[in-house]
Amino acid sequence: MNDLFLRACRRESVSRTPMWIMRQAGRYLPEYREVRSKVDFRTLCETPELSAKVTLQPLARFDLDAAIVFADIMTPLESMGVSIDFAPGPVIQDPIRDRAAVDQLRIPEKGEIATNTVETVRILSRELESRVPLIGFAGAPLTVAAYLVEGKGSKDFNVFRSFLYRERAAADELLDRLTQVTSRYLQAQIDAGAKAIQLFDSWAGILSARDYESMILPYVQRIFSSLDGCGVPRIYFAQDAAALGTIPARAGADVIGVDWRTDLRDARRLHGDGFAYQGNFDPARLRTNSEVIESEVKRVLESGGGTGHIFNLGHGILPDTPIESVHTLVDAVRRFSSTGEIGS
Amino acid sequence: MNDLFLRACRRESVSRTPMWIMRQAGRYLPEYREVRSKVDFRTLCETPELSAKVTLQPLARFDLDAAIVFADIMTPLESMGVSIDFAPGPVIQDPIRDRAAVDQLRIPEKGEIATNTVETVRILSRELESRVPLIGFAGAPLTVAAYLVEGKGSKDFNVFRSFLYRERAAADELLDRLTQVTSRYLQAQIDAGAKAIQLFDSWAGILSARDYESMILPYVQRIFSSLDGCGVPRIYFAQDAAALGTIPARAGADVIGVDWRTDLRDARRLHGDGFAYQGNFDPARLRTNSEVIESEVKRVLESGGGTGHIFNLGHGILPDTPIESVHTLVDAVRRFSSTGEIGS
Repeated sequence: MNDLFLRACRRESVSRTPMWIMRQAGRYLPEYREVRSKVDFRTLCETPELSAKVTLQPLARFDLDAAIVFADIMTPLESMGVSIDFAPGPVIQDPIRDRAAVDQLRIPEKGEIATNTVETVRILSRELESRVPLIGFAGAPLTVAAYLVEGKGSKDFNVFRSFLYRERAAADELLDRLTQVTSRYLQAQIDAGAKAIQLFDSWAGILSARDYESMILPYVQRIFSSLDGCGVPRIYFAQDAAALGTIPARAGADVIGVDWRTDLRDARRLHGDGFAYQGNFDPARLRTNSEVIESEVKRVLESGGGTGHIFNLGHGILPDTPIESVHTLVDAVRRFSSTGEIGS
Repeated sequence: MNDLFLRACRRESVSRTPMWIMRQAGRYLPEYREVRSKVDFRTLCETPELSAKVTLQPLARFDLDAAIVFADIMTPLESMGVSIDFAPGPVIQDPIRDRAAVDQLRIPEKGEIATNTVETVRILSRELESRVPLIGFAGAPLTVAAYLVEGKGSKDFNVFRSFLYRERAAADELLDRLTQVTSRYLQAQIDAGAKAIQLFDSWAGILSARDYESMILPYVQRIFSSLDGCGVPRIYFAQDAAALGTIPARAGADVIGVDWRTDLRDARRLHGDGFAYQGNFDPARLRTNSEVIESEVKRVLESGGGTGHIFNLGHGILPDTPIESVHTLVDAVRRFSSTGEIGS
């Protein structure tokens, strides 16, 4: 198996910088759109053969060093009794606004959570056994709770923030239940063969460090510590998290995901050498030209510092990204990081 | 005239911490909704008597220490030949995507820019002469350009970011024209009697510090330096700007606006005592209860440090904020900052 990604997560020496792409199985690929023209997003997520198929699509096109199971961060919520539509972002039919709604959320056992996705992980871990590691993932408590309370995507999640500040007991109970289910779900993916896991905190940027630390961080820490000794690298990706300061380093992860706003060198300076770093090419720069892309790849590789760096985008790849740009990106990362000129 | 706000902007001693509220004339006020039930947003912005009327509405209810002219950050764009709808956020009929579109933007003379808003400033500066200072404002180049290119509000302004990275010459020309017009527009408001100005950089959070510094900051600096010697305090409010590090302090403003994500004490530690600071009560905390509001007011006042602090929200007040909560807020700021227990 190509173990570059896992070695980089463990900060071991590598012959070149490994890479994968957030949302690498997605709408920018014609073969993905072909599958989606026949089935809706929910069916795609709930049919293990189809989820496995689209997970593998980007690997057939590009030299990537990891795969990530195709699913949605809201997938495990259905096991808790939540009704979700995708339009295309998640829309919650009955947003959670009080303690009574929280108390109705089921806390399923490990074997009952998102069983189709866990089956997909099982299929993929066999398929990929001699190829690249498979990454499992889940949404972080804040991010999932924000959707559940707001009812849909939002710029600042104002309804959720008010709920969090006002309904302290209900918010704590909600975060506690999400923490239990998320821990079990990630463990189930590891049991099924995932070789690494990533916790996506897409909306980490809506709170101050003070509020995040007191109201949210303990739950994130519980999730990561529940996986102590699981033997797989744990990645924490908090998006737009510059205001959170040192919090990402205190989550309990092995790898810190960095979005495109923060320089990888600054992240390493802040959090130290005790972590690997993943990121952080701005996905909007894939819609430029090869000159811009190549020069930015060089810069990101230099900021990444070589050892302990997994090249990735700073956010999910955009739907209208040209395939040719992805080829340019993958080729440039391989070329520039193999020269030995970058970092250590 | 109540000069607390101006004294605080100049970091002079004050008997209590002055305050105003971003978007204080707005939808949370029944008397504002009453006006809006009869005229649309554009007519309201374009009719000086009506704009002046709603500007004064919050002052009749609350003990506020400044007024801010009622207008939209896109208002001056119409003088450049841009067609804008409000739905309710700005929607650009023909988004700017290339150099040809940029070259068609007019650069009006000072006396031709948003003349209705400047007339509103003139009316209000007479009305308020013996009461409180009037603040004029404009949108920052990045924020206005982001709307013009994206065509509407967006979470990350992905289309604009790609344009900025790809069309360097067109982007520079666009930012240059916006800079010229914004400088003249602010000067016109000062000529008409505005006692302070604020530059709103609502989307400052979409770029890395490196890109902001090289592609955007020079234009912001040009705007502020064009007002050197104008005699009125200049406020720079960059929202979600934690990733920008020290950039807000290098803009050339006298007062740094801080959003709810960043602690005022941390902002002062980073940027130093050479500035006054404005902010940063989380507007979502106004939809809680008086206990939460009062305890947070205390905390914000303590972080603000007394001298050189203008109390404000960390973002615009939300439309469904209870009036009662605003009374609680205003009363608490006055009470807690007059005791002499807070800061200096």
